Amino acid sequence: MQITSHDMDVTLHTLYLIGIIAEGMTGAIAAGRKKMDLFGVVTIALITALGGGTIRNILLNVYPLTWVETPIYIVVVTVAALLALPLVNVVIKLRRLFLILDALGLITFAYLGAVIGYSVTHSIIIATIMAIVTGVSGGVIRDILCNDIPLVFRSELYAIVAFLIGLFQAALMEYWHNTVYATIFILCFGFALRLFALNKKINLPLIDYKHKDFD
Amino acid sequence: MQITSHDMDVTLHTLYLIGIIAEGMTGAIAAGRKKMDLFGVVTIALITALGGGTIRNILLNVYPLTWVETPIYIVVVTVAALLALPLVNVVIKLRRLFLILDALGLITFAYLGAVIGYSVTHSIIIATIMAIVTGVSGGVIRDILCNDIPLVFRSELYAIVAFLIGLFQAALMEYWHNTVYATIFILCFGFALRLFALNKKINLPLIDYKHKDFD
Amino acid sequence: MQITSHDMDVTLHTLYLIGIIAEGMTGAIAAGRKKMDLFGVVTIALITALGGGTIRNILLNVYPLTWVETPIYIVVVTVAALLALPLVNVVIKLRRLFLILDALGLITFAYLGAVIGYSVTHSIIIATIMAIVTGVSGGVIRDILCNDIPLVFRSELYAIVAFLIGLFQAALMEYWHNTVYATIFILCFGFALRLFALNKKINLPLIDYKHKDFD
Repeated sequence: MQITSHDMDVTLHTLYLIGIIAEGMTGAIAAGRKKMDLFGVVTIALITALGGGTIRNILLNVYPLTWVETPIYIVVVTVAALLALPLVNVVIKLRRLFLILDALGLITFAYLGAVIGYSVTHSIIIATIMAIVTGVSGGVIRDILCNDIPLVFRSELYAIVAFLIGLFQAALMEYWHNTVYATIFILCFGFALRLFALNKKINLPLIDYKHKDFD
Repeated sequence: MQITSHDMDVTLHTLYLIGIIAEGMTGAIAAGRKKMDLFGVVTIALITALGGGTIRNILLNVYPLTWVETPIYIVVVTVAALLALPLVNVVIKLRRLFLILDALGLITFAYLGAVIGYSVTHSIIIATIMAIVTGVSGGVIRDILCNDIPLVFRSELYAIVAFLIGLFQAALMEYWHNTVYATIFILCFGFALRLFALNKKINLPLIDYKHKDFD
Repeated sequence: MQITSHDMDVTLHTLYLIGIIAEGMTGAIAAGRKKMDLFGVVTIALITALGGGTIRNILLNVYPLTWVETPIYIVVVTVAALLALPLVNVVIKLRRLFLILDALGLITFAYLGAVIGYSVTHSIIIATIMAIVTGVSGGVIRDILCNDIPLVFRSELYAIVAFLIGLFQAALMEYWHNTVYATIFILCFGFALRLFALNKKINLPLIDYKHKDFD
């Protein structure tokens, strides 16, 4: 059996949809915990799901933005957010499934960020940055809007997974022919690393200077 | 008597000026309540008044930005912010007048967002999103900079008014000839709905999952 | 001895490097005080150092962004942030030196903002705004991400220095031939003003409406 570039596109598009749905649901639940109204819940879901790609494209001057070109993504995330509300108990009970879907979204977002970043700039550094931006900045804005310190800055290797996928994928595009199999390997590696970190509760060590200040 | 397109332009421009002045004053007062200095007060006034249109234009890639093309708007908002400070007691006593001016700003911003969004993308969904972005995001950034959970996410139909104006105006542009009279009707409807919600303290129901978490 | 335009370019580039290094270190230390992991520390360092110029260029539609065109700046700031961590005690003991480097960065950022703003728009108002945006917005985002009210809104003339450099430099470009010596004078003036304000703990008066509200 051979995996064609078309199979890959279909798979990635499916993963992208899973990713924005999962991210939209995390956004809706985070907003619901802060006593926002329905409008706030949907807004934060949309920003969580689509914000990373939006910031990436603004930084790279790639227009039109994904959701401006394909507004149906807005409808998909809105529906996911509205479904998350009555189903919140189910979503929380299925926490494990949910984190798996979220991890699928993370690796897809990071991969897409690396590919777009590298295509525009041909720089491994920028491609890696764009993998991180696409993968994590939606969640960062979600946490700012909910008035929390962004969770992603101290959460189980979340950003590191985006970083590694970005770096490997960009190196692949720079030094080898970009092949479907190598990309699949990178995505599986990132997915496994994220699930492993979640299971073992592995974090980067926290830095703590609480009592150190310039004052 | 006939209302011409020119009358409409003059009216809208007047409403826009009222809107940025009212928004600038709310920004200045919000900043003053957080012990900022004069510079902080003016900055937050400018962001509150001009931030929504700025974000809309960046998302749509419409340049130059309004205030970059017409820097006098910066002077107008700065003066409004500086006037709000000595007049704060007056402004607060005239709370009702002030909320009416703010509502005029809201409907104007939402209308302009819908028109620009539809002109660029010919999508009703995007035009509606841009009405909301233009109408409310200045206030959202104001609240983030003042370290509050954005008020607009739980405030009397504020965002819903922007949503409805955006949706109706975009539908008007898609399905009918865009006529002055229909637009006036939409604006009056939005204005009345906002005032009604303020008077009756009508809110969307708040979602509250405080005790529900993934942890 | 004559100061050539080339000398000036080399000096400014050196000052720019000093600025992003100093800003990156303040970002790293601020993040470290909030119990973030290594990734969070580096991210906040990058945003503090490069965020101001990024926002300026997005507002003016000037692409590619500085660090997208010259990714080595990302490496420089990352290394500075990582060095700030083990050296935190040294950095804090050398507080005075550090604030001087930070002041050098401030005047350089403000100057570059004014020059780029004026070149693109030929408006003194916009050039002044861009001096402020470039000089202070990195620090503002740093404080938002660390969930603080932005310090710059109540800190010793920080923003005022950026404002004055922007205004004078833009006026210079509008009304006289832009000469090297006048620019040097403006930069020295801004530097001296900032150090004077730091030494004497001079602040703009704080506005405080804590007990005044619309409600």
